[in-house]
Amino acid sequence: MTTVAAYAAPAAKAPLERTTIERRAVGEFDVLIDIEFAGICHSDIHQAREGWGTAIFPMVPGHEIAGVVSEIGPGVTKYAVGDRVGVGCMVDSCRECDNCKAGLQQYCTGSGGPTWTYNAVGKDGQPTYGGYSQKVVVDENYVVRIPDGLPLDVAAPLLCAGITTYSPLKHWNAGPGKKVAVVGLGGLGHMGVKIAAALGAEVTVLSQSLRKKDDGLKLGATHYYATSDPKTFEHLEGTFDIILNTVSAPLDFDAYLSLLKTDGAMVNVGIPEEPVHILLSSVFGNRRSLSSSGIGGIPETQEMLDFCAEHNLGAEIELIGADQINEAYERVVNSDVRYRFVIDTATI
Amino acid sequence: MTTVAAYAAPAAKAPLERTTIERRAVGEFDVLIDIEFAGICHSDIHQAREGWGTAIFPMVPGHEIAGVVSEIGPGVTKYAVGDRVGVGCMVDSCRECDNCKAGLQQYCTGSGGPTWTYNAVGKDGQPTYGGYSQKVVVDENYVVRIPDGLPLDVAAPLLCAGITTYSPLKHWNAGPGKKVAVVGLGGLGHMGVKIAAALGAEVTVLSQSLRKKDDGLKLGATHYYATSDPKTFEHLEGTFDIILNTVSAPLDFDAYLSLLKTDGAMVNVGIPEEPVHILLSSVFGNRRSLSSSGIGGIPETQEMLDFCAEHNLGAEIELIGADQINEAYERVVNSDVRYRFVIDTATI
Repeated sequence: MTTVAAYAAPAAKAPLERTTIERRAVGEFDVLIDIEFAGICHSDIHQAREGWGTAIFPMVPGHEIAGVVSEIGPGVTKYAVGDRVGVGCMVDSCRECDNCKAGLQQYCTGSGGPTWTYNAVGKDGQPTYGGYSQKVVVDENYVVRIPDGLPLDVAAPLLCAGITTYSPLKHWNAGPGKKVAVVGLGGLGHMGVKIAAALGAEVTVLSQSLRKKDDGLKLGATHYYATSDPKTFEHLEGTFDIILNTVSAPLDFDAYLSLLKTDGAMVNVGIPEEPVHILLSSVFGNRRSLSSSGIGGIPETQEMLDFCAEHNLGAEIELIGADQINEAYERVVNSDVRYRFVIDTATI
Repeated sequence: MTTVAAYAAPAAKAPLERTTIERRAVGEFDVLIDIEFAGICHSDIHQAREGWGTAIFPMVPGHEIAGVVSEIGPGVTKYAVGDRVGVGCMVDSCRECDNCKAGLQQYCTGSGGPTWTYNAVGKDGQPTYGGYSQKVVVDENYVVRIPDGLPLDVAAPLLCAGITTYSPLKHWNAGPGKKVAVVGLGGLGHMGVKIAAALGAEVTVLSQSLRKKDDGLKLGATHYYATSDPKTFEHLEGTFDIILNTVSAPLDFDAYLSLLKTDGAMVNVGIPEEPVHILLSSVFGNRRSLSSSGIGGIPETQEMLDFCAEHNLGAEIELIGADQINEAYERVVNSDVRYRFVIDTATI
């Protein structure tokens, strides 16, 4: 066991504060990672405030973790001390179900599903704690390598925002000749735009206003529309092959579904806190579909990091000290960040 | 112009009665078909009773048409007098949009979409009249060939019930190793079971009760469950690759969506008359999707007929005289038909 400094929410909706936590001893297949950077994801806030239901406290959020290996267990074969590595939303899964065997650990159907990086209980019966801390111990099978070309600070958000957008874009075949709409230009959305453009698709941003239009075009979008203007929906009817919805607030899904062309898919990666209802008739007419996607499996997360390194894609970040976490949370809720807060964990 | 006998609904919800209608003169690319059989589809009833909105009267329903070519226009190259042919839900489309060019005429995005076989207005500005009549004139491009091995009476329902189930089963890759649930064992459902089984999938029927279980197993299903039993939904959670919903009455879609495995698709081919709401959260968790499918394009309709001939698949029918149409409508509404009424048009 190692005692390490961390930032934790002591209770639901309470401000995060500095504390210490225990990390398990490095086991046979474990890697000890000195965390250098941790991204702040909107889902950290959903969970720390119990927006998605009852949570485990104290909670150390953070599932966008980038750091350097400082110790390995005797059975570790994939990583060595000094390797630059990342950890995303999962630190374990059953490893036996069809999905785990297919590398889709995020959809693990074993008892309890994947072991999430925080706000969960590991196979050892202990609560998991996330990346707002100085060190973490993770089984090597749930660690990915960060290619040399990617700085660790801009790589950290790829572990959630990157893979959450990369996985559905790949699954629904974003690429040359395809029209992709990205709904919302926040932490997820800005990576969605970068990745979809790098995949060769023609990218449109659908945002509440035109406030971030210049950014959107710089990030790789060809078109940018304000969804507050009803004409947007008339003008774009039947346009898109893929609508990647990164917004977790409720939307008029029926209106968005009408923007899909034949065989188009609307894929949701933001999870609203409130129940949202959709009219069945909104999927009728041209074989359009409504679906969702959750992060990505371990092999695909590695593939995404390699792709991002090859295309020189990192997140646009605002680097903060740990004492700014609570302020950053407020700004994320108010969509006031371009485009991801990353904590310099040396300041914890 | 030719005057032909037909059965028509003179007004919404009025009983159908014998009348005569005018068919256009055989044009350059037209085929005159002596109709021998016409299936009764539930959508005939939805439309004749204005369940799907304002309709055109008098209405001659019928889009499951099987007959023999009795005259051809001078430009016709695909058919000759004496050929056994069928006509389904469409008799024309714009022929210029991407979907028409791709053979997906059912999703024609031209002005007004496809010209439906009845309850529509053709390019000549005249109302279209369906198959409950003795003859019909159709452009050869919207006519399909009925292979010799298929008797015309059991082939007629394939023009709607066959293609409506074949197209989504093919599109979502039903085949060996795939688990397909067919919801509802009626006109569409019984063809869905036959076709899915012939494609090599493992087929489960989900029906309100076990009343038709013996039939379902004979038609090709391996499993049969009553959806009135809540244990069915517990037992089958995460089971299916494809759920083909043929029921047009509202269902608990959220419960059905939970039966999909990772990447599974629930495809709706029945269109409820009332608005149905679905929880967005029902598509979260394992990349499952909610979609719909509408009939099929002309090339795929031909492919389906060839497939059915090869596998010896016709509809299970109850042949009736035209004077039984109104009684048959009541029985369809009450799910009291095994499994498709077909009108012997010689009796009109």
